[in-house]
Amino acid sequence: MGEQNRVWKLVRRPVGNDYAAAVELVAEGVPDLVDGDVLIRNAYLSLDAGTRMWMSAREDSYSPPTPLGSPVISTVLGTVVDSRHPDYRAGDLVRAYGQWADFSVSRPDEVYVERVSRRLDDPRQHLAVFGANGWTAYLGVVEYGEARAGETFVVSAASGVTGALAGQIAAQVGCRVIGITGSAEKAAWLTGELGFDAAVNHRDGDVAEQLRALCPQGIDVYFDNVGGPILDAALGNMALFGRVAVCGLLHNYGREGRVPGPERFDQILMKRLRFTGFFSPDFYHRGPEVNRVLRPWYEAGKLRMRFEVTDGLEHTLIAYGTLFSGAKVGKALVRLADPLD
Amino acid sequence: MGEQNRVWKLVRRPVGNDYAAAVELVAEGVPDLVDGDVLIRNAYLSLDAGTRMWMSAREDSYSPPTPLGSPVISTVLGTVVDSRHPDYRAGDLVRAYGQWADFSVSRPDEVYVERVSRRLDDPRQHLAVFGANGWTAYLGVVEYGEARAGETFVVSAASGVTGALAGQIAAQVGCRVIGITGSAEKAAWLTGELGFDAAVNHRDGDVAEQLRALCPQGIDVYFDNVGGPILDAALGNMALFGRVAVCGLLHNYGREGRVPGPERFDQILMKRLRFTGFFSPDFYHRGPEVNRVLRPWYEAGKLRMRFEVTDGLEHTLIAYGTLFSGAKVGKALVRLADPLD
Repeated sequence: MGEQNRVWKLVRRPVGNDYAAAVELVAEGVPDLVDGDVLIRNAYLSLDAGTRMWMSAREDSYSPPTPLGSPVISTVLGTVVDSRHPDYRAGDLVRAYGQWADFSVSRPDEVYVERVSRRLDDPRQHLAVFGANGWTAYLGVVEYGEARAGETFVVSAASGVTGALAGQIAAQVGCRVIGITGSAEKAAWLTGELGFDAAVNHRDGDVAEQLRALCPQGIDVYFDNVGGPILDAALGNMALFGRVAVCGLLHNYGREGRVPGPERFDQILMKRLRFTGFFSPDFYHRGPEVNRVLRPWYEAGKLRMRFEVTDGLEHTLIAYGTLFSGAKVGKALVRLADPLD
Repeated sequence: MGEQNRVWKLVRRPVGNDYAAAVELVAEGVPDLVDGDVLIRNAYLSLDAGTRMWMSAREDSYSPPTPLGSPVISTVLGTVVDSRHPDYRAGDLVRAYGQWADFSVSRPDEVYVERVSRRLDDPRQHLAVFGANGWTAYLGVVEYGEARAGETFVVSAASGVTGALAGQIAAQVGCRVIGITGSAEKAAWLTGELGFDAAVNHRDGDVAEQLRALCPQGIDVYFDNVGGPILDAALGNMALFGRVAVCGLLHNYGREGRVPGPERFDQILMKRLRFTGFFSPDFYHRGPEVNRVLRPWYEAGKLRMRFEVTDGLEHTLIAYGTLFSGAKVGKALVRLADPLD
């Protein structure tokens, strides 16, 4: 097509959190399509903690690693500009597995590509409430966590996109909701704008003690995004027959070698707990069903989100770093020039 | 009643596995009953790993500790010889929470007491296949482990009563069954008399490697009685969407302080696993229902058990020690004089 396509390519495996040394921004032509491809002009890149799993060649990772020399894989929102697939045509708005690039080339028969509505009031919500984060939050709360009205619900990394949605969804289910986060400002966002019942700042004293004071009857559902010492603090405060929805182990990512397991693992027996690990690509096909449940809550203003939008593909790497520094609140996106034209 | 009653009393909290220093055998008169009591002449004491939980004053234990100076609590099988409870009368055969003693005094409105049939071919099976071990094995396999025909099922401490029953039940459900045990002789019992498909001797080389060779498609259900390094070996070999039924953490018992959690805990996310902890008193009320399922399998010779019977109340402590030394196979019982008269 003659147009330029800038692409972030994986040039070596990241060591720890050093992504800057692992990727390079390369300018090349927009690739030619072959049968079955669609070409997407990326409007937004979704910045997700899981992306680095693809970058790594970690043993037992849940995703096959991206080959060195290939573009970094990412969920994107954008407009189909050319299609060699019979079910997609130019002008379609799609959410897809694409690339950190101006344009994504995706093969709908092989990877996730879904047409989405242009009528949503805020199209960024296709990558938040109504995308994988929303589905993960909803199924984590309702199915894996089995949250019920009147229960006490605790979520870690609560000011992240999935945590913030999980807490708001648990509130809609009728739970008392407590978020664990890393600053007073984030805690204030949770209990203010998002309506959490309480928040724990893990930099503000012992988390186990704070949880004990807030949950005298114990935690019925713990939605975990982090693992590590915060998981242990929660495990020491579980109620009998509590559920632990294991959504992420942020504490482990980027660490070399093996990481010790939870010291309070014995609580699974003492309190007869259920732990369930889950991973959104397993339930992408349930997105439409989940979105039908989320929509009225969203329209009633009950599922709020903050977006941290970085402009320009060239700033992707800097924006990605904020996911792990604790600086980010809500959903991090990269906005490309002229989105959604 | 004037008759003598010998009673094992808890005189101090055990340190590690030193039960000998924690209990004393005391001779006294048979206690007078008050309203609501039944007096049971113990025929058999069930020796259970969990009994020491009652002896300890461990933080977060799942049972309230036995007060110092009180008899050691134990499941017993025996005959009611006197009753001040309207639902029980002299001559009833009961399985009950009683005491390590010649006679148990139990209050059916407060603790587990259940009348059982005298027609069972082997009354010891009231404390094995048709008692808490059988219920734990069945529900652990079928409900907590969600085992299905065609799946690969692995059980640790497989030559223990619960492990041996779990493996045989999984075989009835249609699983391929592999037991982990601690000697060649026990392994031969599993694959011979019990019909397991394979056995791993954890003293005979790396367990993870042995499991990898035996389970090339991964483990669908891991029924864990031990925790510790064997749990890690299993976790590294789980299949996608595998289940871990956490029945016991034998590796942890008797250890002072906290014990590290499983290093491969991250597999819960990588393989989207479900771990469920369970504890038989939660489902004693389901015993009759489970026994209706187990009975035809038992009658067809599919649920076999070896009993290690020690004669004489005075030898209870020695017999109890065999539970943790690896010496025991099957169900350990103490038989008292003149059982089931």
